[in-house]
This record gives sequence, structure tokens and C-alpha cells, in this order.
Amino acid sequence: MIARLRPQPIIQIDDIRPSHPGLRVVGVFNPGACLDQDEIVLLLRVAETGQVQDGYFSLPVVDADGLGFIAIAASEYAAAKDPREIRYHGQTLLTSLSHLRLARSRDGIHFKVEEQPFLFPQTPLESYGAEDVRIAAFSDGYYLTYTGVSADGVAVCLARTKDMIKIERLGAMLPPENKDACLFPGRIQDRYYALHRPAVNFLGKPSIWLTESYDRVHWGNHRCLLRPRENGWEDDKIGAGPEPMLTPEGWLLLYHGCNRDSLYSLHLALLEGDDPSRVLYRTQTPILYPQAPFEIAGFFPNVVFSNGWVRLPDDRVLIYYGAADCAVGVAESSVAELLSLVKQASAH
Amino acid sequence: MIARLRPQPIIQIDDIRPSHPGLRVVGVFNPGACLDQDEIVLLLRVAETGQVQDGYFSLPVVDADGLGFIAIAASEYAAAKDPREIRYHGQTLLTSLSHLRLARSRDGIHFKVEEQPFLFPQTPLESYGAEDVRIAAFSDGYYLTYTGVSADGVAVCLARTKDMIKIERLGAMLPPENKDACLFPGRIQDRYYALHRPAVNFLGKPSIWLTESYDRVHWGNHRCLLRPRENGWEDDKIGAGPEPMLTPEGWLLLYHGCNRDSLYSLHLALLEGDDPSRVLYRTQTPILYPQAPFEIAGFFPNVVFSNGWVRLPDDRVLIYYGAADCAVGVAESSVAELLSLVKQASAH
Repeated sequence: MIARLRPQPIIQIDDIRPSHPGLRVVGVFNPGACLDQDEIVLLLRVAETGQVQDGYFSLPVVDADGLGFIAIAASEYAAAKDPREIRYHGQTLLTSLSHLRLARSRDGIHFKVEEQPFLFPQTPLESYGAEDVRIAAFSDGYYLTYTGVSADGVAVCLARTKDMIKIERLGAMLPPENKDACLFPGRIQDRYYALHRPAVNFLGKPSIWLTESYDRVHWGNHRCLLRPRENGWEDDKIGAGPEPMLTPEGWLLLYHGCNRDSLYSLHLALLEGDDPSRVLYRTQTPILYPQAPFEIAGFFPNVVFSNGWVRLPDDRVLIYYGAADCAVGVAESSVAELLSLVKQASAH
Repeated sequence: MIARLRPQPIIQIDDIRPSHPGLRVVGVFNPGACLDQDEIVLLLRVAETGQVQDGYFSLPVVDADGLGFIAIAASEYAAAKDPREIRYHGQTLLTSLSHLRLARSRDGIHFKVEEQPFLFPQTPLESYGAEDVRIAAFSDGYYLTYTGVSADGVAVCLARTKDMIKIERLGAMLPPENKDACLFPGRIQDRYYALHRPAVNFLGKPSIWLTESYDRVHWGNHRCLLRPRENGWEDDKIGAGPEPMLTPEGWLLLYHGCNRDSLYSLHLALLEGDDPSRVLYRTQTPILYPQAPFEIAGFFPNVVFSNGWVRLPDDRVLIYYGAADCAVGVAESSVAELLSLVKQASAH
């Protein structure tokens, strides 16, 4: 187990200004993270929804004309099984629209959140939202992989930024139904690698796949790398977390597991440095699971989910995580401790 | 509507010799097709299964050691809802193992089927079978896209052959859950294109997506191109057929639609020659649907499904199709007639 740096969220709903009039923030969670000079940058997922007024609920969506609203009778909105989804006229919609918001900090704990979105959904791949970004730093800029949700499905979108201001969208890197994609930050021999999580349903379980590329835009040679396990933590699905971290002993992979109670916990694997298709170690029990009150209760309870971490110059590692699809927490570890955890657990 | 060249299947189960002792052929269908010199080559999907003996059913699967069998009590095998699938110990398995078998013909109707498989499943992406190949001819060889089925899901596999004998596997081109992928035979400007059919389930319906590549192995910039329509033929899902055919008026695309009764029919679209992301025309009613007895009844009834066609030097087009997941039929048309059908129907 790793230690929480704070027993409370470091960023929560009240810290976020809505992006547009008529929207209210219902969650800030699942940030991507990177170092930018001497600052820690988070790209937060901010989930917003509309108002309830005169018996109608206004659901925000984005189309070719920009932000719009679908008016849904409040009675239809009530009593959904999953708070994240709503059925409307035979169609599935999300109950909120997510965008990415930038925040900066010098100490890794106190963040200044920008008032405007960093990346707001654009049609057509993002009409229902942009979610859960991973940031991989390369010499030619940051590559962002995030989930684009639309009426055509849940896909992995790719974008590039040099300055964390101007964004170049590079289209869907992987088609539906896929999410939880992260690039390895750097080339291994002559090619790039990424992990992703196709949402299979007919055969197999949602697993972590490896893919390779020569340019980071076009991907091939997909292989299943890690599968769910029947251990009470990772039974139903697993997915990669932030960009893997290169250590002297290989690539450290932080990933999440989801069990049959929809409880999300954090786990580690170690992949060979020269060949990330070789799994050297994998933890047997989580390094973090929902225990703090803000992790146990929230918009979607019992979730710790990480898609952002940073390694500080002193080899400390700050692990940012979404708690209960509602707020942001931070835990602290070190490269040495994470390596020890992943190697020790697998020795059993 | 196009005309059947024969009122009966041109290839059926009795024409196929089992690939291994202990296997029996339960279907030959869904061939890919191409011209090879003055011969028409089909790569047939041959589905085989094991024997029922002493109350046990032997289900063939492939693992690292090659072909093996899972023994399933015949009572468990009975009364599956879908004849193609079986639930066993909480796991889904296919009731048959498919491989690809080559057949040659000079007249396009009478085929000589090889006695040995052309491509037999190899673990791990193909452990439950290799299905429904599309053949795209390039100056450097034939590129084959086929469905690889395994315990990790249903993926699009890629292979290359220069001589229709030696096969070079190029891995999974697209991760699960995906099938019905075909390459455009040739470059458009500086890149290659392909169509594929991700099996979304949470949002959207199974649709035809477009993707692009610089090398045919790595793919990116995925976009949804054609979606199911509520017209009684294509309500539930659609998927691309054979490699698109370049005509003076654009790329002719033959695709299948599946309606709410699981009836599969054939349709056409015309894509712009210089930019296949632009749909110029799309038929409103099928050009072929199950009518002949061998299309209406079979292993999976009410299916005509095409993943193979050839354009003869006189511009006649032979359309090969799987009938009821059981046999192979052939219909005849011409480039002029197909263009007329796709343009006329959309004029309404």
C-alpha cells in the first residue's frame, strides 16, 4: 500500500468554475499529469451538467454548432441504474459532459485551476465528452490520449501540444469501444508503444492490450498483455493508468482493476525495458483502494482511478487519482518503493 | 436486384475434405475472392467441428501445441440460443473452428478446392478460428484481412502473400471487438485506406468505419462512415464486404446489413474516388437478399453475406456470397449495373 499525501481531496467541485452559463460542475476527477519546468500540471476531467427547471432537465451535448442542450423530462431522468448514464428515446446518453481543464502547482498539492477549459469537446467524436486524458512527454511535445464519447461510441482520441495552450487534434487513434490508452513516453528501438483497453463483450474480458507505431498516429500489431484475474480486485476489468514510467528495472505500469462490486483499485506491473510485451512482475493486491470517506462516497462510489503521475527530480512519485468520480486525491511514493511493491508481491 | 448466376450453391459441405482426422465440415461459406492470372481464386471459410461420441461433444480449438479438443457433455451442448456459440463453464466458445481453404476456377462457377487448408488458425489470436477473409491485390502482393477469434476477443488480423502459398502474418491490425475489415486495393494520394466494423455496444450501433495508413500495418484517424438505418434491412448492424472496387465514378462498396430478425442482405454505396470519406450514394433497398432455398435455410438461416467479388476483363462482376453460413453462392452483375443501382436508388 502507498500513502495518501492528504486525507482529503486536493481539488473538488467547489474549486471549479463552470465552463459555460447554464452548466454546473458535478465532478472534477481523473487528471492526467506531467512536469512542465518546475511546475506540476494536471489536466483535470471536469464533468458538467445542465439545470433542472420547470420539470425539465437540460442535458449538455456538443454538435457542429457547439454546445447545446437536450431537454429531458425530469421524471425520465429519475431512477437510472447507473448515475453516469441515461436512456432517452431508446438511446443511451451520458448524464454529464466532460472536458479537460488545466491546473498548475509548485508543491503538487495546492493547484491553481484555470477558469476556461483546456480542451472542450468538438463534434463528431467528442459530442458527449472528452475524458480521462493521459499525457506522454516527448522531445517534440506532449501527446495526449483521451476518451472521446459520442453517439458513435467510446473511442481513443489523440492530440498534441507543445506549450499546453495550442492543441492539435490528431483524430481517433483507436476506434470504439476503447479507452484507457497511454503512450510509452519515448521510443523503444525504432518504434513507439501504447497500451489500451478494448471493451470486448462477446468473448474475453476487458484487458490491457499493447500496440506499436512508427509515428504515434498509426497503430498496429495489437496484442493482449494483461487480463483480469479472479482475485477479488481485478475480476471484471482492468485498464492502464498513466503513461508507463521507465526505471532501471523496466517500465512501471500503474493500472486499475474493477471487481464484481464495481470497486476500482490501483495495481502495478513491471514490463521489460527493451520489450514491453514481456510482463516481469504484477502485484497480487492493490497498492491503493477506496478507504478514505471521499473515495468511498461520491458520484460513483468506491473508486480510486489514476491516469496521472509525476516523478520528481528526487525520485519521489506523486500519484494523482480520481476519487468516486467526484474529486482529486494524491498519494506519494517513490520509484524505489513502487519497484519494491511490484517485485515483492509477485514473489509469492 | 442482381441476378444469381446459379439457383444452387456452387460449393457446399460435401465438396470439402476435413482438414484433420476427427473433424467434420459443418459449413463452407463467406469466401474472399481475387483474380490470379486467368483464374478466379476463392479463399473459403471452412467451419469444422468435432464428433459426438459416448455422450461427449469434441470442440476443436488451437493452442500453442496446435489443434486440440475440449470435451463437452452433449447435454450441455444442446439447446443453445445461437447455433454458432456455446456457453461452457461460464465461458463463451464457438461451436466450430474455421480456417481458410483455397479454391480455383476458370469459369467462376466450377471450383477445384484444395485438400489442405490455406491458412489454419495459430494461437494466440486465432485459437477459436480464422474467418471471413477479404483479399486486396497490391503490386507487392495480396493483403488479407480476416477475423481472428480467440478467448481474448474477435479481432482483425492481417497477412500478406505473394503467391497464394506462403503466408506472412502481420499481427492484429485492429483490436477487439472488430471484424469485416477490407483494404482499399491501392493508394489514394499518399496513403492507404481500410474499412472496418467495430462492435460497439454501450453507445452507437455496429457501423462501418474508415481508417488510414502509410504502410497497411499501422492504422489511425478512424472515422465513422456509414451507420445502420431504420429501413427494415439495415436496422441492427452493417459491415463492409469485399475490398472496394475503383470505378470511373468512385469506389464501389458492397456491404451487408442485418435487420432485427438477424436477416443479412447486400447493399451498395459509392465513395468518392479521391476521398473515400465522402459518401456519394447509398442504396435504399438490398441488391440481394435471402430468397433461394439454400439462403433461407442452413446453419444460420436467412443470410446472404459477401466478402469476395471479382471484376472480369469484360467488366462483368462476379459476387460470391455465403448462404446461411453453410454454402457458397454466386451472383453476376457488371460495373455499369452496380453503378446504376447505387445511383438510381439514392436518387429517390
